[in-house]
Amino acid sequence: MVVVDKGLLAPVRAGVPVERLVSDDAWLEAMVEVELALARAQARLGIIPAEAVGRISTAVREHRWDTRAIAEAARGAANPVVAFVQQLHRAVAEVDPTAADQVHWGSTSQDILDTATMLIAARALSAIIADVEATVDALGRLAREHRDTPVAARTLGMHAVPTTFGARVAVWMQGLLDARDRLRRVRDHGLPVQLGGAAGTSASYVECARGSGGELATAPAAQIYTRLSDEFAAELSLAPIDAPWHSVRTPIADLAAVLALTSGALGKFAVDVIAQSRTEVREVAEPGAAGRGESSAMPQKRNPVLSTLIRAAALQVPALSSTLYAAMLAEDERSPGAWHAEWQPLRECLLLVGGSAHTAAELAAGLTADSGRMGRVLALSRGQVVSERLSIRLIPLLGRTEAKKALQSAAFEAEARGRSLAEVLAENPAVRRHFDPDQLARLLRPEEYLGVAPDLVDRVLGRA
Amino acid sequence: MVVVDKGLLAPVRAGVPVERLVSDDAWLEAMVEVELALARAQARLGIIPAEAVGRISTAVREHRWDTRAIAEAARGAANPVVAFVQQLHRAVAEVDPTAADQVHWGSTSQDILDTATMLIAARALSAIIADVEATVDALGRLAREHRDTPVAARTLGMHAVPTTFGARVAVWMQGLLDARDRLRRVRDHGLPVQLGGAAGTSASYVECARGSGGELATAPAAQIYTRLSDEFAAELSLAPIDAPWHSVRTPIADLAAVLALTSGALGKFAVDVIAQSRTEVREVAEPGAAGRGESSAMPQKRNPVLSTLIRAAALQVPALSSTLYAAMLAEDERSPGAWHAEWQPLRECLLLVGGSAHTAAELAAGLTADSGRMGRVLALSRGQVVSERLSIRLIPLLGRTEAKKALQSAAFEAEARGRSLAEVLAENPAVRRHFDPDQLARLLRPEEYLGVAPDLVDRVLGRA
Amino acid sequence: MVVVDKGLLAPVRAGVPVERLVSDDAWLEAMVEVELALARAQARLGIIPAEAVGRISTAVREHRWDTRAIAEAARGAANPVVAFVQQLHRAVAEVDPTAADQVHWGSTSQDILDTATMLIAARALSAIIADVEATVDALGRLAREHRDTPVAARTLGMHAVPTTFGARVAVWMQGLLDARDRLRRVRDHGLPVQLGGAAGTSASYVECARGSGGELATAPAAQIYTRLSDEFAAELSLAPIDAPWHSVRTPIADLAAVLALTSGALGKFAVDVIAQSRTEVREVAEPGAAGRGESSAMPQKRNPVLSTLIRAAALQVPALSSTLYAAMLAEDERSPGAWHAEWQPLRECLLLVGGSAHTAAELAAGLTADSGRMGRVLALSRGQVVSERLSIRLIPLLGRTEAKKALQSAAFEAEARGRSLAEVLAENPAVRRHFDPDQLARLLRPEEYLGVAPDLVDRVLGRA
Amino acid sequence: MVVVDKGLLAPVRAGVPVERLVSDDAWLEAMVEVELALARAQARLGIIPAEAVGRISTAVREHRWDTRAIAEAARGAANPVVAFVQQLHRAVAEVDPTAADQVHWGSTSQDILDTATMLIAARALSAIIADVEATVDALGRLAREHRDTPVAARTLGMHAVPTTFGARVAVWMQGLLDARDRLRRVRDHGLPVQLGGAAGTSASYVECARGSGGELATAPAAQIYTRLSDEFAAELSLAPIDAPWHSVRTPIADLAAVLALTSGALGKFAVDVIAQSRTEVREVAEPGAAGRGESSAMPQKRNPVLSTLIRAAALQVPALSSTLYAAMLAEDERSPGAWHAEWQPLRECLLLVGGSAHTAAELAAGLTADSGRMGRVLALSRGQVVSERLSIRLIPLLGRTEAKKALQSAAFEAEARGRSLAEVLAENPAVRRHFDPDQLARLLRPEEYLGVAPDLVDRVLGRA
Repeated sequence: MVVVDKGLLAPVRAGVPVERLVSDDAWLEAMVEVELALARAQARLGIIPAEAVGRISTAVREHRWDTRAIAEAARGAANPVVAFVQQLHRAVAEVDPTAADQVHWGSTSQDILDTATMLIAARALSAIIADVEATVDALGRLAREHRDTPVAARTLGMHAVPTTFGARVAVWMQGLLDARDRLRRVRDHGLPVQLGGAAGTSASYVECARGSGGELATAPAAQIYTRLSDEFAAELSLAPIDAPWHSVRTPIADLAAVLALTSGALGKFAVDVIAQSRTEVREVAEPGAAGRGESSAMPQKRNPVLSTLIRAAALQVPALSSTLYAAMLAEDERSPGAWHAEWQPLRECLLLVGGSAHTAAELAAGLTADSGRMGRVLALSRGQVVSERLSIRLIPLLGRTEAKKALQSAAFEAEARGRSLAEVLAENPAVRRHFDPDQLARLLRPEEYLGVAPDLVDRVLGRA
Repeated sequence: MVVVDKGLLAPVRAGVPVERLVSDDAWLEAMVEVELALARAQARLGIIPAEAVGRISTAVREHRWDTRAIAEAARGAANPVVAFVQQLHRAVAEVDPTAADQVHWGSTSQDILDTATMLIAARALSAIIADVEATVDALGRLAREHRDTPVAARTLGMHAVPTTFGARVAVWMQGLLDARDRLRRVRDHGLPVQLGGAAGTSASYVECARGSGGELATAPAAQIYTRLSDEFAAELSLAPIDAPWHSVRTPIADLAAVLALTSGALGKFAVDVIAQSRTEVREVAEPGAAGRGESSAMPQKRNPVLSTLIRAAALQVPALSSTLYAAMLAEDERSPGAWHAEWQPLRECLLLVGGSAHTAAELAAGLTADSGRMGRVLALSRGQVVSERLSIRLIPLLGRTEAKKALQSAAFEAEARGRSLAEVLAENPAVRRHFDPDQLARLLRPEEYLGVAPDLVDRVLGRA
Repeated sequence: MVVVDKGLLAPVRAGVPVERLVSDDAWLEAMVEVELALARAQARLGIIPAEAVGRISTAVREHRWDTRAIAEAARGAANPVVAFVQQLHRAVAEVDPTAADQVHWGSTSQDILDTATMLIAARALSAIIADVEATVDALGRLAREHRDTPVAARTLGMHAVPTTFGARVAVWMQGLLDARDRLRRVRDHGLPVQLGGAAGTSASYVECARGSGGELATAPAAQIYTRLSDEFAAELSLAPIDAPWHSVRTPIADLAAVLALTSGALGKFAVDVIAQSRTEVREVAEPGAAGRGESSAMPQKRNPVLSTLIRAAALQVPALSSTLYAAMLAEDERSPGAWHAEWQPLRECLLLVGGSAHTAAELAAGLTADSGRMGRVLALSRGQVVSERLSIRLIPLLGRTEAKKALQSAAFEAEARGRSLAEVLAENPAVRRHFDPDQLARLLRPEEYLGVAPDLVDRVLGRA
Repeated sequence: MVVVDKGLLAPVRAGVPVERLVSDDAWLEAMVEVELALARAQARLGIIPAEAVGRISTAVREHRWDTRAIAEAARGAANPVVAFVQQLHRAVAEVDPTAADQVHWGSTSQDILDTATMLIAARALSAIIADVEATVDALGRLAREHRDTPVAARTLGMHAVPTTFGARVAVWMQGLLDARDRLRRVRDHGLPVQLGGAAGTSASYVECARGSGGELATAPAAQIYTRLSDEFAAELSLAPIDAPWHSVRTPIADLAAVLALTSGALGKFAVDVIAQSRTEVREVAEPGAAGRGESSAMPQKRNPVLSTLIRAAALQVPALSSTLYAAMLAEDERSPGAWHAEWQPLRECLLLVGGSAHTAAELAAGLTADSGRMGRVLALSRGQVVSERLSIRLIPLLGRTEAKKALQSAAFEAEARGRSLAEVLAENPAVRRHFDPDQLARLLRPEEYLGVAPDLVDRVLGRA
């Protein structure tokens, strides 16, 4: 068998648990679970005989599914369910030919595949949430430890003002907490079963109930639908529905949204670690491990490989999510192509986000922060990183224009001669009239111009 | 002045109110409002003198803003706020030089632009919500009227089973109601003010408060921040914040999600109208209007132009939303480029969704449904569109294999000879053993195999 | 071993030859070929001993590669080459420890992986080209056969004017011929070897040559580079280079372009087949095959599954190609993440385009066109589909305004009463003054208003 | 009139010449030119009277076009051409009612708009090519000057090996030269006129010729088409065609490809400038200008604003280009929506690439490189940046395992104690056996391990 993907080109998730959760075999297994859940629900409502369930259950448990054969046969129907159901019928027929007619009873490909997709998504989301939470926990420890550690804040790549390393970590946490909240909302309320029959009317399920002689044989259609879909949802612990969503792809779009957001939050963490790991900066270092981050040719290197993996994933997810949104334009009761375009991009998003959440947990747990180095980097500009503060002090005293002029010429002089800003400013008589050298030196100490940076740590820890 | 865009290439929103809400002038006006709100908040807390607010207010009211000059000058800072603030300072200085030093006090470009963006988004979202609601209302009338009108449901372009036109309309409504709920959530809770100063620490605002001699001069930084940001949010009716989101772009990502979802829901409506307007189908027709849908060359044509406009927009939004997600990878405390890459795609999303929601309201209000035509189209297959029902009836009687064989050969014969399926089936002795010709004819009447289609209308109307 | 992808969610390429060409095992095999080619090139230039090549060759032939282990180990370096080279070293060392030091000599991960990627792309492109050519051939036969078969041309879904079915097929061919030309250009000239060493300077290769005592030991660096890269390219039949492209990703972008274009051309074919297969149209039908296009529940259905598969692929490729373009923003001499973000999207594009080209060849070979049905559909408007012609005739006689008015009111009357346009027009005295009923009937015969439609077939056949 | 876009949110192109070239007014003007060219071509072939051309020409010259009114009216037809042609007819009718019937004779909206789009694209591409060439020229000077200036090459953000600054500049040039070549190819050969009439058959043009009594009245349709399209193309200096491309969107896809590639090449330049401008690096500095790069709040800042603008553009183009590829799925002879989805994304790509090419020319012309700083940064690792060279020297002497161990422990010691690598290595007896301290020091001099870096400059300069 040709195996396209063993993870060689996707190290972000090679060997990560999410692979198992969303593999083709897992998807097939989920389809089996969905068929069983449907049979159980129908048996409970008297639509099929109760004993059929046991036989179906036995049959599917003992059957060895050939996922590859189903995949290849899927070309004949443009979806894998038709071939799967044929294999399912055969498997059950071997145990009990009558039960074989009661499996997939009244059902349609889309009900099975969409519901299986929701099951898979629920499991993958739970794994992602756990990894996001682990990442947040580890970052929380780091943020607490460095609540007050001064570090240069950078805008457009340049030192701007001081902040604390804890506040920077809190920024990462903020994004991840936003992701966690949205992930939970989708997992807990946004993953419904699908039930609609051939084209969303559920006429087939109603017909099956009517023909069954069971308790619902004479019930109104709406009641049959509600009972059946509720039982079905309960069996699978998925969200119940009022109506099918065959061509209303909100659950897929909600997944697109939350996966793209999570990917972005993880990616933000990664790009910051990369920027701060640069040889010239080295404020942080990725966790070491035997062989990790080594170069085959350059013995001195210790590459930020975990954040590289996360960033690589985050560069791929937005485009994949856009395909999911585009697939909402599903004409008629089932689109020739739009539905089919969802499957791989959704799985790929789950893999990439699952892989990078797992990688982020590892990164966060082992990330080391070098506060000494942060201090030295912060001192590079000899006080200029705090010049905003002087500006705020001088404007009321000198007016905006004069204050700006004084500060810019001092900045230029300090930069050109490698002098401290405080020293240069002290030579300006207009400034000197208001501040003596000691005051200037104190005003320009980074650790005294941190604003609410430490408080932001407290707030985010409170939220976590 | 060169005006790039007068709407010539974007008829979906040319002349639609959303254009005014999100135009460059509106954005500039929003920046003015934000500066005023900040000044009012600071005055209320004693950070700037109360009388300054009046003067700033007068100055900005009387100033004639030159949006184009600011746009061109924006190249010098990579954002328009620096040039805007210079113009603002000059404008206020003409009224009162002292007040000029108190405008934009302690502030930074990103606080102003992000907050203005949220204001713009709030207004655009309100317009979009109103149009989505109007569309839902109009569709609700249509769904109610055609609750029971049989129509062919199509999967992969082929007649599948019957449904009702009302149920199809209910599908459009379902998507739009999902969009409405998410739009409201974002508008009401997801659009926060931005306040963080140069790099998210708010040190400058704290410094301004400390130097002011006001009530907060000796307050802890966290308290200053909370008081100021709460006042600021209240002034603008935006969501309050605990922490800035300078490099945590969740509010932008949430907008991306809800706009892409809304676009998809509108696009679904449009592609269905297009499919059902085709010359060979004509189940629905777009509302006529003088000159609308005419071709310059073909007098007979009545093109589905409104749905064409909506679909064209829906083909553009997913990719634009992906850029917003990609921009979450904003390194450091302000990214050189990622922040800047958000502005145009977000505005374009608002325009496209705003334009298509408005167009959809017009389309829904005037859409005509031809139930006679629906019936004739449904009859095209001479009963085959209900063959699923026979399948469900025959399987328990003949077994799956036999039932399938009987139906497929009947379907082939009926198709080849142009005969009714009931008639052909009645010639099959195995079938005849269980059903007489009348029963077959009745079983194959589309209007008796509608499942819960009419009930879905009730449910969606209940939700709307 | 967890196998994520057995093709279950991607029937467009499940079992299609392209899977084998671009699988992880194929990629690993290509990396082996690249290492061998490098060794051979270095041996030919005296940089490593000639006998080393034989030993390396033996070792890699006999080694059983563990792709999955390499994939999992790739997490340690953020790319699979480091782990691969370790396995390679071990494999060669088992045969000859000295030769092990001569494998991958002076090389770097990116040289190996980029070159392997080009090898893979060359093979996949050749397969795609062959399938595009087969599709064009089959379509050519169809176009020739239906060169003059009238069919309704549709714009915005409505009958516009007549064309011929051959001309429509020629449109599909035009797009595919454009794709073929560009695919060939990229395959033949756009797939270069990569050779640059750790960061594009090739200093390591130069150092190896200098230390070798071979013919190039004292050659200038530029000469060493040229000789080595030329030999390397010749070994692999890839395009030679003047300079490395480590962070100039033009070859990847060229692949993105040609794959997206090919996907679009295939997708255009598919959406047309889908539109013309609709139950109400049925001008064409997909090739039948046992079980193909069947629905599990609806015996009458014959779904256009091949075009559905192609369209589903074409809905995914544009977004994937955008990721490849976005990855061009590769900072420094090797980006932490941008390079790594190319691999999976590129492979996925190759798979999707390879799968859909193969599917298109099958579709084209068996597509049936129903000219009788085309005629009946064309007659639906009772002559209105030719009204443009009357417009052109009447304008010079009546003036634009009068002509338009006459035609529109006739069109309205004909539509409302179900009458032929010729008949209605003949009742208009102004028209009647110039044309008698026979003339009108003749003017409105679709087969006499085909313009150059048949000629377009000849032209495209000439080009093919 | 509401003006959505004055450039406020797009400083990369606010005030840049490309805005004028692709504005709505320019597009309308191009439509006028196209109509004139068609009239001239038809007059030359005797299809309309020669004197009509003069009158049409006078009329359009004197008419004041109301672009906004046309834009708003475009909602009625889903494209702006119908309203434009109405205004055109009125304008000509005021001069000569007969000539009014001869304008737009036999034509269709898509012929006019597609051809106008090609005209616009040709002009924008020429401007982009000129700016790319100017950028290449300026970079060429920089590369020549710094051909031999050592600088640290970085991979994954870490110092890897030395290169020269000239070689880095040559990398930027390589990408831009690739873009230039492809831009020229598309501009010179890839921008065809569009001519096909209502649905690609050109029947209307043939009918007009037949009815004209001119030289072509009895010519075969194919000849009429060839003569007319050739004259039309010659009038506009666009590429001639064999067949229309109404629903074969290769020219749009080719534009997408070349614009995305150019954007990527410009973006690569920008991200490198940003990385090297960081406060801790400062190897390069953007050109200064009054007020440029200033922060409103931080007097010391000099932000890399030009590269920020370019990068922001480059983050937007790939997604826009994907919409153009997606629009290739244009069903039938004119798609309801896919055609319409091309216009804004194409214009936005032209604007963004035009703006960033212009900005890049400015950036390249003024970019300053600080070779002293490069040297100091390169020295940060005290020789470790050349350790690859030692590895290549030691492997043949000690074997791969021993060599690696020796170098890694030396690297660790040197890093931990802040010592030079040469010094530490000299203490290793195994190393010392082969190299004395002077040799080690010399081997680890960055300027002697540059490989072909300087030669790459020569090669790229040769190509430029």
